[in-house]
Amino acid sequence: MTDTALHPFDRAVALRPVEGQPGLYEGHTSQDYWNMVGPFGGITAAILLQGALRHPQLLGSPLSLTVNYASAVVAGAFQVQATPVRTNRSTQHWLLQLLQADENGEQQITTTATLVTALRRETWSQSDLPMPQAPAAGELERMTMPGKAVAWVQQYELRAVSGALPTHWDGRGDHSRSQLWLRDAQARPLDFLSLAAMSDIFYPRIWLRRATPVPAGTVSITTYFHTDLAQLAEVGTGYLLGDARGQAFSNGFFDQSAELWSEAGELLATSNQIVYYKE
Amino acid sequence: MTDTALHPFDRAVALRPVEGQPGLYEGHTSQDYWNMVGPFGGITAAILLQGALRHPQLLGSPLSLTVNYASAVVAGAFQVQATPVRTNRSTQHWLLQLLQADENGEQQITTTATLVTALRRETWSQSDLPMPQAPAAGELERMTMPGKAVAWVQQYELRAVSGALPTHWDGRGDHSRSQLWLRDAQARPLDFLSLAAMSDIFYPRIWLRRATPVPAGTVSITTYFHTDLAQLAEVGTGYLLGDARGQAFSNGFFDQSAELWSEAGELLATSNQIVYYKE
Repeated sequence: MTDTALHPFDRAVALRPVEGQPGLYEGHTSQDYWNMVGPFGGITAAILLQGALRHPQLLGSPLSLTVNYASAVVAGAFQVQATPVRTNRSTQHWLLQLLQADENGEQQITTTATLVTALRRETWSQSDLPMPQAPAAGELERMTMPGKAVAWVQQYELRAVSGALPTHWDGRGDHSRSQLWLRDAQARPLDFLSLAAMSDIFYPRIWLRRATPVPAGTVSITTYFHTDLAQLAEVGTGYLLGDARGQAFSNGFFDQSAELWSEAGELLATSNQIVYYKE
Repeated sequence: MTDTALHPFDRAVALRPVEGQPGLYEGHTSQDYWNMVGPFGGITAAILLQGALRHPQLLGSPLSLTVNYASAVVAGAFQVQATPVRTNRSTQHWLLQLLQADENGEQQITTTATLVTALRRETWSQSDLPMPQAPAAGELERMTMPGKAVAWVQQYELRAVSGALPTHWDGRGDHSRSQLWLRDAQARPLDFLSLAAMSDIFYPRIWLRRATPVPAGTVSITTYFHTDLAQLAEVGTGYLLGDARGQAFSNGFFDQSAELWSEAGELLATSNQIVYYKE
């Protein structure tokens, strides 16, 4: 688990199958993707997805992933249980769980997820969400984070087109939209795992909307994948353009939606999440 | 299960607890909400939600519901299993399953779902999705469906502002957006169950986008609830304004997003789904 020849992302999502128990894996949290009080939600999503992608019964590729952050994941060992509950001709439905031992050594569920994988066939296709106009990534400065920035943010190269973190937390926010170029800070070809993680890269929209850093955390995220292995291979280590905005902020919870395009303008993923906030 | 004094919706979502097995219920499909080859997806979502709402350990009210349509539900009896997998101070995480007996009498999972319920506290609140301008419902004609229309559609009063079903299936569609007023055809005060069902009321966007009625069906739907019991009571039997559009149509699957507002302009729910389509 500490093979330094591996990319930090691959170390973070590494799973070791438990012999004789199909779909059960062991893993360990990574400090490289640590958030304030637990792992970056995106890395947890990728770890759960990995449980299905490594399963010998896997059919097709990821279509829809919902991850529910039921309780805090603590630093240390965890288990992933991936169960294909229904396999159809062209779709497969999964239940995924991340578990950690409590003080009595009993495994407790910290995170639940459902996943649909699918065999895709060529059909009429059309994206009605064109990529927004944006300056090329190379024309924009790389975002630098304040000294106290959380670890996972350092794993990404982010170049904001608009909606960077507020520089004045003066409570005067008037919108919640961010557009930014992003990719792994240490080059790594895009795959479904990193795409799942990157779908959660947009900091809580309420910070921007209110220019106030209230406590906030994702409760549940759903990502739809609109891509395939061939297209991901074409993207390689290129940038993605991300676009995210908050929608309804109501009594402690708000939702935010996001899209991720390739530099070539292909919509790779759409994602929505519901986020807890305080005050 | 056939109490004709009940509203058809209440008959359709009726569940009978199985004694001695907490969270396990028995129910029966309703012809009133039948779609082409199975129940309307929205009624299945409401039935699963009902399993949690009737559970004695329920904390708070619905926040986020994801329903995965793993296989066809057939006419007849079913079971619902609702399991609270984690209860926190202000949120509760659920696994929900709908099961039907196969030819050998063994219960098989047809539908999986995850739900988050939450206790909400008054906080700073703001909707950044204002209700679109639309003529009042009373100024619009009620949509009439062709004779072969499926049963569930008859349970709703729909008044299209724009984006009604194509009248010419000529393959010349150029957008996928519908705005419509909607409510139960037989008056029934809005609750979380009917709101969950109504979030799935928008027919497959690909029919409108292509003006071609290709086979299509929801694979997974996620609905975020931005409302509470007091606000639902205010809506009562009033209309909701729905707004929906497709996003990415790619090799057999597309996603569509939707919002539902009260007549007073309050955003009650936002919903996304991923839909299978052929050709």
